[in-house]
Amino acid sequence: MENGIRMIALGGLGHIGLNAMVLDTPEGAYLLDCGVEFPDPNEPGVDQVIPDVTWLLGLGEHLKAVILTHGHEDHIGGVAHLLKQRRLPVYGPRLAIALLEEKLDEHGIHGEVQLQIVEKTTTLSLEGISVEFLRVTHSIPDCFSLAIRTAEGTVIHTGDWKWDEEPVDGEEVDIDRFTMLGDEGVALLLGDSTNAEVPGRTRSEKAVGEGLRDAIVGHDGRVIVAMFSSNIHRMHILADLAEETGRHMVLLGRGLERMARVSRRVGLNRTDSSLFITPRNMGLIPPSKLLVCCTGTQGEPFSALYRASLGIHPLLEVQEGDLVLHSARKIPGNEGRIYDMFAQLTRLGAHVVHGKAAPIHASGHATQDELRAMFEWVRPQAFVPVHGETSFLQTHASIAREAGVPEVKVIENGRWFSLRNGQVQVGDEETFRRLYYDGAQSGNSTTMGIKERWKIAHTGVVAIQVTRKTVEGKLQVTVHLQSQGVPDVKGRFEKDCRQFVEQELQRLPSYTPRADFEDAAKMLVRRFAKQSVGKKPAVLLHCTEG
Amino acid sequence: MENGIRMIALGGLGHIGLNAMVLDTPEGAYLLDCGVEFPDPNEPGVDQVIPDVTWLLGLGEHLKAVILTHGHEDHIGGVAHLLKQRRLPVYGPRLAIALLEEKLDEHGIHGEVQLQIVEKTTTLSLEGISVEFLRVTHSIPDCFSLAIRTAEGTVIHTGDWKWDEEPVDGEEVDIDRFTMLGDEGVALLLGDSTNAEVPGRTRSEKAVGEGLRDAIVGHDGRVIVAMFSSNIHRMHILADLAEETGRHMVLLGRGLERMARVSRRVGLNRTDSSLFITPRNMGLIPPSKLLVCCTGTQGEPFSALYRASLGIHPLLEVQEGDLVLHSARKIPGNEGRIYDMFAQLTRLGAHVVHGKAAPIHASGHATQDELRAMFEWVRPQAFVPVHGETSFLQTHASIAREAGVPEVKVIENGRWFSLRNGQVQVGDEETFRRLYYDGAQSGNSTTMGIKERWKIAHTGVVAIQVTRKTVEGKLQVTVHLQSQGVPDVKGRFEKDCRQFVEQELQRLPSYTPRADFEDAAKMLVRRFAKQSVGKKPAVLLHCTEG
Repeated sequence: MENGIRMIALGGLGHIGLNAMVLDTPEGAYLLDCGVEFPDPNEPGVDQVIPDVTWLLGLGEHLKAVILTHGHEDHIGGVAHLLKQRRLPVYGPRLAIALLEEKLDEHGIHGEVQLQIVEKTTTLSLEGISVEFLRVTHSIPDCFSLAIRTAEGTVIHTGDWKWDEEPVDGEEVDIDRFTMLGDEGVALLLGDSTNAEVPGRTRSEKAVGEGLRDAIVGHDGRVIVAMFSSNIHRMHILADLAEETGRHMVLLGRGLERMARVSRRVGLNRTDSSLFITPRNMGLIPPSKLLVCCTGTQGEPFSALYRASLGIHPLLEVQEGDLVLHSARKIPGNEGRIYDMFAQLTRLGAHVVHGKAAPIHASGHATQDELRAMFEWVRPQAFVPVHGETSFLQTHASIAREAGVPEVKVIENGRWFSLRNGQVQVGDEETFRRLYYDGAQSGNSTTMGIKERWKIAHTGVVAIQVTRKTVEGKLQVTVHLQSQGVPDVKGRFEKDCRQFVEQELQRLPSYTPRADFEDAAKMLVRRFAKQSVGKKPAVLLHCTEG
Repeated sequence: MENGIRMIALGGLGHIGLNAMVLDTPEGAYLLDCGVEFPDPNEPGVDQVIPDVTWLLGLGEHLKAVILTHGHEDHIGGVAHLLKQRRLPVYGPRLAIALLEEKLDEHGIHGEVQLQIVEKTTTLSLEGISVEFLRVTHSIPDCFSLAIRTAEGTVIHTGDWKWDEEPVDGEEVDIDRFTMLGDEGVALLLGDSTNAEVPGRTRSEKAVGEGLRDAIVGHDGRVIVAMFSSNIHRMHILADLAEETGRHMVLLGRGLERMARVSRRVGLNRTDSSLFITPRNMGLIPPSKLLVCCTGTQGEPFSALYRASLGIHPLLEVQEGDLVLHSARKIPGNEGRIYDMFAQLTRLGAHVVHGKAAPIHASGHATQDELRAMFEWVRPQAFVPVHGETSFLQTHASIAREAGVPEVKVIENGRWFSLRNGQVQVGDEETFRRLYYDGAQSGNSTTMGIKERWKIAHTGVVAIQVTRKTVEGKLQVTVHLQSQGVPDVKGRFEKDCRQFVEQELQRLPSYTPRADFEDAAKMLVRRFAKQSVGKKPAVLLHCTEG
C-alpha cells in the first residue's frame, strides 16, 4: 500500500459470526473486533472457531491495537487467543473490557495486557487514525459504532446495532452525532447487515417488557423465563416485573450469573439486589412468588432449562402450573432440540410460550427501515455491508443504492479493499485458515483431528494387528481385530472380517514386501466391510514379523 | 381392547416426520402411512430413520394392510422396510403407489406385493372398517384425507393438506364431502398440525405461478429454478412459463427426473414433452432460451444446484446473467449450507432470489385460517392433532377448542388412545425403537454403531498393541500405538502417549492379572490424552503375552 487506507475482514462478511476486521494505514494497522463463531455439526468435538491468529501475527509490529465495539462473544471471543501470542493493547467499552478480563484470567494473562475503557465522549488518537465512539443500542448494554478519521476521510463502522428509541438504560442512539458526521462528510460506511432481509422496524426492548408483563401478570404459578445471558436490559425489565408482581427473582445458569456479576461490577446493572435470591433458597419460596431467569434458550445440553426439562436439574423441578417464557429466538439449526425441550417441559405440566405466540423477544439488529435511517443520517460517499451471509450483504447493498449512496461494493471475507479519493477498490485475496479451539488447544482442521473425526463418524474404525512369518516358504498370518462404530446388526462383523483378512493375506507370496503386505491388509478390511456392512472404515494397522 | 377402536402413532406426533399411525379394531389393525425421517446431525452415517418394523410385525396377522394418503417420503418411505418382512397389501393413490413401486423394485420385492390404487370415488371395505378417500390439495398431486367408518363412528384423518382454492390440476378440496360427513356426524378428527403456529392462509400455487412469472418475464439470461422434486404442480407452472417466454425447459437432478417420469407414467404430468430438452443438449441452446429446473433446494452435497455452485456440475456452468430462483423453503438446520451455496452462486455471477424477496414458494400445509375452516366443515365430536412438534399440536388443540370441538386431546408418539362412545381415552404407552437404515442394513442406534460413532466423532480413537513378558520377576512391556482423530497440534501425541503408557505399565507388579493389566493400559491412554490434548478417546486394545 503506497497511500490511502485498506481493510480486510477475517470473518463476518459472507458468513455470520467471527467478526474481525483489519483497518490498515501507512502508520499502523488496527483490529476492529475479534470474535468467535460456533462450529457447525460437521466440526465435531471443538468449542469454537477462532480468527486466524497466525495471519494476524504476521502483520508484526505494524498491528498496533484491538478496538472493540461491544461485549458479545462473536466480537470479543477471539481476543484472548491473539493476546496469548502478543500483548496488544485493547480499547473498548466498559462491559466488553470487563468480560474480556474474565477471559484473560482464564488464559492466565490478565494483568499483562493494557486495557483501556472508552466512553461515549472518548476520542482515541492512535498512529494514523483517531477513533470516536458513537452510542448505539443493541441486545447487550454499552455498544458503540466507531467513527474513524483517516487520511482518506471518515470511516464509520456501525458495529452491531438497532434503533431502539426507548432504550431501557436511556442510552439512545447518538443520532445527532451520526448526522453531524454526515454533515461533515463520511467517506465510507460499514454497516451491520444481520437483519437486512427483514422488512420494517425491530421491536423495542420496552415493548418486549410489555409483552412479558402481559404474559406474567395474572399468572398464579411459577414463571420461568429463558433468555440470552448478555441481555442485561431484559434482566432489568424482568427484575422490575418481579417487583411489580411481588415475586423473588432467581438467576439460574452460569452464563446469567456471570453476566449479572460482571455488569454489576462495572455499574451497568442497577437492579435492586435484595430482590434476588440464590438458587439454593428457591425451594423455600412458593412458586407463585418466584420468577426464574434461566439459560438454555437453544436447548444446550448442560443449560439450566434443558436439564430441568429432563427432570435432572438439582434445584428446578418443573411442575404443573409453571409458565415457561422463551424470550429469545431459535437460532437456525437448533429448532429440533428446542422443540424437543418444549415437549419435555409440557409433559412435566408447564405451559410454554414461544415464537410468534407473544411479543416477548426482540432482535438486536437493525431491520430495513432502521438501515434506511442510518443512510439518511450518515449520507456516506461509499458503503460496504458487513456482518451477514452474502445474501444479506447484497440486500443491504441494494438498500444503500436505493438510498442514493454513490459507491456501493459487496466484499467478502479474505479480500482486501482500499479507500482512496472516495473510491472503494477491491484488492488482493488472502487465505485465512479456519482455526479451532477445543478448550485445551487450537489448530486447524487437520491438526485438531476434525477431518479424521468427521470421517470416522460416518464410517467407524477398525484396528488390526497382523503377525506374519514364513514357514516352509509359505506365509503364516495371524490377525486380531477390533472395531468401533462399524454397523454390526448381526453381531458377526469382527469375527468374519478377521477370518476373511487372515485367509486372504495367507494367499500372498511369502516374498511380498512389508509395505505392500500392509496396504493389502488395510484394503482387505475395507473391502470386506464395504461388502458386508456397506461402509469403508478407517483402518489402524500394526504389523509384526513373527 | 374389548370394544371400541384404538390408535397409536409410531411417529409424527411430537416430532416432525416419520408419519405412521396404527388404527386398531377388533377385526383388524391398519397402518395409516408409513414414512421416514431424516437423521439429525447427531446421527452420522445413516440415511434414514424408519418406523419400528419389529413392533409392527409383533401385531402378527391382526395387521391387515397399509393405507397411504399421498406419495411424500415422510408418508411412504418406510413401507418397503415393512413389506420386506411381511407382504401386506397396500392401498393408496395412484402417484403414491407408483412411487412405492420404484422402491419395491430397489428392494427386489416388486411383484410380490398386492398394490391397490384408490380414486376419489373409491370406498374400501376392509375387515372392521370402510375407508373413503376425500380429495385434498397439498404440495404433491393426488392427495387424500381418509374418512374411516368404524364401529365407534366416523374418523377423519386429514393427512397432509392445505386449502388451495385454485389448484393447478383442478382437483379441489372436496369441501362438499367433508361437510356432508360433518352433517352425518364425525366422531373424531385427526388433523395435520405442521403449520398450526402460522396465522392466516397459505399462498395458492397459482399465486406462486404469478410470482415466478414476475421474476422470469423480462429476464434476458438463463433462468434456474431450484424446487422440491415432488411438486409436479410447480413443474407444470414452470413448463407453462417456459412456453410463454419462449424457453426450453430442462430437468436437472435425479429426483426431478424420476418424479417427471413416474408422474407422466401415471398420467398426472400432462406437460408438453416437446418443450423439454435433455440436459446433455442444454449447451446447444442460448441461455436466454433456457429454463432449468433443478434439485438442490437444501444445498445437498450431491444435488445439481450445489455442484453447479462449486463449478463442478458437468452440464450446468453458472455464469453472469443467470437468475437463480429458490422456489422452496429453507428446512431448519440447512440454512448455513444454503446460504453458502447462494454465496457461491453469486460469486459466479448469478442473481439469487429467495426467502421473502419474492412470492415464489408456498407451503403445502394448512395454516390457522384453513385449520379453522376444516373444523367448520367437519364439526367433529373429538379432535386429536397430528403431524407436528408437540408445541404445534398444542396450538392446534387450542384452535380446536376455540372452534367449539367438545373433546380435544394432545397425544404423542407411542401412546395408545381409544375412541369409545365419543370419548377419547388415553391408554398405555409403547416404547418404539428409533431404527436406522444406511443403504445396506437397518438396526437400532447400538447395532448400527451410531452411538459409538457419535462418541469417537468427539474424542477420536486410539489403537494400542501391548506385549508383556516377565523377565527376572519384572514386567517387560512393549506398546505400539496408532490414533485417528485425536487433536495433535504439536505432532507428538502418538509418540509421547506410547512412551508414557509403556513406562507406566512397566511399573505394575508382574503378577497383575491380564484383565487388570488391560484395564490399566486403556485407562493410561485416556489419562494421558486428557492431560495432553484434553480428550478421552475410545481405546481399542490388543494384548499379547510375549
